[in-house]
Amino acid sequence: MIIEPAQSPHSSDETSSSPLPDPSPGPSRRTLIAGAGAVAGAGIVPLAVEASGAAPAAAPGAAPGAAGGAEWAACLTVARAILVRDEADEPLVPRYADILLRDGLPRSRRTKSVLVVGAGPAGLTAAHLLRQAGHRVTVIEANGNRVGGRIKTFRAGGHERSEPPFTDARQYAEAGAMRIPDSHPLVTGLIDGLGLRRRRFHLVDVDGSGRPAYRTWILVNGIRVRRADYARDPRAVNRSFGVPARHETVPAARILRDAFAPVRREIEGKEGKALVEGWARVVQRYGHMSMYRFLSDEAKLDERTVDLIGTVENLTSRLHLAFIHSFIGASLISPDTAFFELPDGTGTLVDALYERVEDLVRLDRRATRITHGNGTVTVDTVSEGRGPRGVERERFTGDTAIITVPFSGLRHIPVTPALSYGKRRAVTELHYDAATKVLLEFSRRWWEFDEADWKRELEAVRPGLHREYRLGRTPDDGSLLGAHPSVPRGHISAAQRAHYAAARHIARDQPEAAHVVGGGSATDNPNRFMFQPSHPVEGSAGGVVLASYSWSDDALKWDAFDDAERYPRALAGLQEVYGQRIEVFYTGVGRTQSWMRDPYAYGEASVLLPGQHTELFPHIREPEGGLHFAGCHTSVKPAWIEGALESAVRTALEVHLKD
Amino acid sequence: MIIEPAQSPHSSDETSSSPLPDPSPGPSRRTLIAGAGAVAGAGIVPLAVEASGAAPAAAPGAAPGAAGGAEWAACLTVARAILVRDEADEPLVPRYADILLRDGLPRSRRTKSVLVVGAGPAGLTAAHLLRQAGHRVTVIEANGNRVGGRIKTFRAGGHERSEPPFTDARQYAEAGAMRIPDSHPLVTGLIDGLGLRRRRFHLVDVDGSGRPAYRTWILVNGIRVRRADYARDPRAVNRSFGVPARHETVPAARILRDAFAPVRREIEGKEGKALVEGWARVVQRYGHMSMYRFLSDEAKLDERTVDLIGTVENLTSRLHLAFIHSFIGASLISPDTAFFELPDGTGTLVDALYERVEDLVRLDRRATRITHGNGTVTVDTVSEGRGPRGVERERFTGDTAIITVPFSGLRHIPVTPALSYGKRRAVTELHYDAATKVLLEFSRRWWEFDEADWKRELEAVRPGLHREYRLGRTPDDGSLLGAHPSVPRGHISAAQRAHYAAARHIARDQPEAAHVVGGGSATDNPNRFMFQPSHPVEGSAGGVVLASYSWSDDALKWDAFDDAERYPRALAGLQEVYGQRIEVFYTGVGRTQSWMRDPYAYGEASVLLPGQHTELFPHIREPEGGLHFAGCHTSVKPAWIEGALESAVRTALEVHLKD
Repeated sequence: MIIEPAQSPHSSDETSSSPLPDPSPGPSRRTLIAGAGAVAGAGIVPLAVEASGAAPAAAPGAAPGAAGGAEWAACLTVARAILVRDEADEPLVPRYADILLRDGLPRSRRTKSVLVVGAGPAGLTAAHLLRQAGHRVTVIEANGNRVGGRIKTFRAGGHERSEPPFTDARQYAEAGAMRIPDSHPLVTGLIDGLGLRRRRFHLVDVDGSGRPAYRTWILVNGIRVRRADYARDPRAVNRSFGVPARHETVPAARILRDAFAPVRREIEGKEGKALVEGWARVVQRYGHMSMYRFLSDEAKLDERTVDLIGTVENLTSRLHLAFIHSFIGASLISPDTAFFELPDGTGTLVDALYERVEDLVRLDRRATRITHGNGTVTVDTVSEGRGPRGVERERFTGDTAIITVPFSGLRHIPVTPALSYGKRRAVTELHYDAATKVLLEFSRRWWEFDEADWKRELEAVRPGLHREYRLGRTPDDGSLLGAHPSVPRGHISAAQRAHYAAARHIARDQPEAAHVVGGGSATDNPNRFMFQPSHPVEGSAGGVVLASYSWSDDALKWDAFDDAERYPRALAGLQEVYGQRIEVFYTGVGRTQSWMRDPYAYGEASVLLPGQHTELFPHIREPEGGLHFAGCHTSVKPAWIEGALESAVRTALEVHLKD
Repeated sequence: MIIEPAQSPHSSDETSSSPLPDPSPGPSRRTLIAGAGAVAGAGIVPLAVEASGAAPAAAPGAAPGAAGGAEWAACLTVARAILVRDEADEPLVPRYADILLRDGLPRSRRTKSVLVVGAGPAGLTAAHLLRQAGHRVTVIEANGNRVGGRIKTFRAGGHERSEPPFTDARQYAEAGAMRIPDSHPLVTGLIDGLGLRRRRFHLVDVDGSGRPAYRTWILVNGIRVRRADYARDPRAVNRSFGVPARHETVPAARILRDAFAPVRREIEGKEGKALVEGWARVVQRYGHMSMYRFLSDEAKLDERTVDLIGTVENLTSRLHLAFIHSFIGASLISPDTAFFELPDGTGTLVDALYERVEDLVRLDRRATRITHGNGTVTVDTVSEGRGPRGVERERFTGDTAIITVPFSGLRHIPVTPALSYGKRRAVTELHYDAATKVLLEFSRRWWEFDEADWKRELEAVRPGLHREYRLGRTPDDGSLLGAHPSVPRGHISAAQRAHYAAARHIARDQPEAAHVVGGGSATDNPNRFMFQPSHPVEGSAGGVVLASYSWSDDALKWDAFDDAERYPRALAGLQEVYGQRIEVFYTGVGRTQSWMRDPYAYGEASVLLPGQHTELFPHIREPEGGLHFAGCHTSVKPAWIEGALESAVRTALEVHLKD
């Protein structure tokens, strides 16, 4: 039995902890702005009254005065987290890379018993580093059959020993992390160091020789254009949104880039301390804004232009979330960024990380209560209770703990004594966004076809079918689903056919062959974003398409449908973009992942609300007694493996260097 | 087979419809503000630079000029919807009431065939009015076994013929609508007209003689105070948030009321056209703001004070959503509002509405596709497929249709020809919020106990137990769950006990008896808000408590837990507020409703994002060809039955008067 301090001052218990929060108000959005205004002059506050169309003036140097000190400090904290710098503005990544990729932590004089809660990339990596340094480590993982967190590959085998998820046992697809930016040195270094191969992930479709082709589609407001054609002449699409004349001839990506220009000017071409301060000014100036507010109030864009760039550049569903998040994301996920992927899936990285620490990991143990104090941390857990013994409880005890649980999950884990006020607010309020993927298997990589390929393959179904599709004379009742001889029989249920026939958007037009490798299309239909695999799976003529990748409200709407309905609906959305004829290659097998419905993820990632970067972020990673906090939500790279790895090294160091 | 127009201009089909949207840009947030500034002077825009603490100056009369005309028109549209006025600013409710409650629609000369999609209160009511007027009506409902939409009572019997949901078959509880404001004349009139009884719903707890007692608890930051004590001396609670000195002695409700004062001044004491224009100015001035932005930028409240009022006054989880919504809500859900409830549950209202039109309703028919044009509307549907025949499809055809489907669901229903641009954006972007309720059954109404009652009842479990609880010496392993002799055996599973023991927040303090009738408590633990029943169920000594009622992110976090874990966790949160001893009356039976996970509700209600009132709302209710749009989301009373009824009468009139 644990003696736990009571939570209320009404308690008659003796307690060594105070339930009262830190009484000193931390940085606040309002005082932040007021303070900054006092310090930095009128340039900060009245952004809304600047002349229409004018770029906001650069903020003065903003050496903080007494009034604004705390607030500027919060902005600097966020800026340093964005840049991964220490308090002296020195880059941390080289030091982290040395530890993660080469030297490990130094051997410890005093070994500790460390509990790591959560076996995602952060937990697995921290556990490895700490064990190497001589500590005793136990990793507690909620899932009964897998580790890896939001890295998850639908595949046969792997450490999960899964049954093949698709009709072709060689096929696999990503439920979570699917693209690794070249600019993330810890994860790319780790992949290389573990001896794993990586290859290009084509965010933009390429031609046969690997050059960007921009032949995938934009389909919005009933207008379908190839990306290259849109870039050359955006008028038809832009007019379909009713944008003002001055925006009719400018591609959405360019409008967005121009809107971001004043923000980029704060940071571009800067280094060291000046770069940190530039980012801090960005945080100070825009940290309390949603993307909606930025685009309308700062960039002075009209509603229709916001509709346009939101639809084409994937901002609409997150317009109400923090500007900072989408600004960083839009800079990263762009045609200018080189991305990598792992052959056989990102899950192979998890396999490798797991192999190093498998003996330390306790699966099927979900943390339900955390107690700490007097140099001890206790974590109560439950099992999923699927076995004959029902729900089992187990208690783990250590000297210290690294908690990698998303704060959305930590909200339901009582911590005794109570966490600090700032941490409690962060745990309560940190916003997690939804993301849902729907993946469909096809027996042929039809997106790589040219028209001659289409003709040959459709004629193999039945003579004349190529022309029937072209004329829009094929049946719409689902009878041609999986009709190609390459599709194995028996996977398309009657329910799938019924839902397909009942719900699909009947589009009789038949676009020309996509004829691309990799990349993907954007649409305003519910699918929103779709990606083709960048590489064939060796030995397989088929492929798994990410038929729908959506966020936020868009994602939650997909979650209403069970699989028998979700897959044919996702297929119909894909058909609207690529043509009805792709149906003949559909195997009837799909996989889907709703991260908001994952019982241990509680969302795709911490996508912060306006103001949360300055109000909550500084409290997220602060250790509390024996508790240290890791996971991508403790970085400013939520949803990226790199952020998880940064946090793993940081917390491993915290634990290691603590006496 | 339907000949459906293609959706793309690339189509080779002949088509009579254009997929292009209305090319004239509608009102936009940006031009709205710019226009208003041009018209109304500097008072509108630079709110952020007004002297700290000063109330924003009242906007000038704002007779719209040429530049601001369209934008002001959008604000007027929203204002008239808020006030339920016609274009001449005349109240519509008296006319609606006459139709709904007394006269019905006039008999029609030309009878039409009308499809009503959705059998919630809007659909059931519109169907009744139209049938009475001589039209042929078919109501299509997705659910296989019930109607009523987001009115849903967990109960035995009813039109759903449900099995008893609780151990005491007389007990019932509300999954959805639970309180009906006195200020909603259509729904109260309808209840009375249908011969249903209504009685007071106690938002605030009352004493034995029915007077407000304010004896329920506020438990935040580990401090527990009765509401009356908090109102008298808020210092301990307010200091626990670290609010500035000037707010230490002011109750949260008062701080909030003061913050809203400048907004209220635009409307208070006004009538007729002046009131409409006052609301339009509120919409113009604040419609693009989140509650977070309002409180920080307009009301100049610091972060800690926002934390305080957000926590106690139920704003935190919706801070990022539209100010307008929560402002209206906070004005309505206040101790000053009289609320009613229906004995035996709000579901009895559904029973009565259903009885009038039961022969018109086709259950188990979910709309999957809508086609309209040439004076005909076709609605394709699917069944849930639970029967031996699997998923069945059926097509309904009528002259016109009333669509009551939430826009979150309509997003996945293809409409041919495409809806207008404005409607499509509204369908795509209209935000629906989450809400989750967890209801627990107890064999005694312990909240009504005084300390003598507690002593008697606990001694009935075992001698000395009253003192054991008081001293915090009872076991915490769940062995006392349902230990009172009044609790029927066999409903508390081993899994519930295990989860209870593993997760509950061990609070050793034992508050005094609540000794209240009705009302509820507020806490910063995950339960957030809890309500006791306002009235006993006749013949039953027990009661069902709404142990947790949460919105938005708070609600989504509850959705991660299955029932065996959710109920003991909700119990633990309730215990933290009311004391551990309530566990002896827990029957082990609960019910829970996540409206975001309801497959046909897709959320609690349309709680709009900043800017959506002016950008999207004017498009929501506009008819399109043969399609008319009803449901609470077409009113500015989302989640309220009154809004659904307004829309029922409005669309019945639209259909009836159309030639």
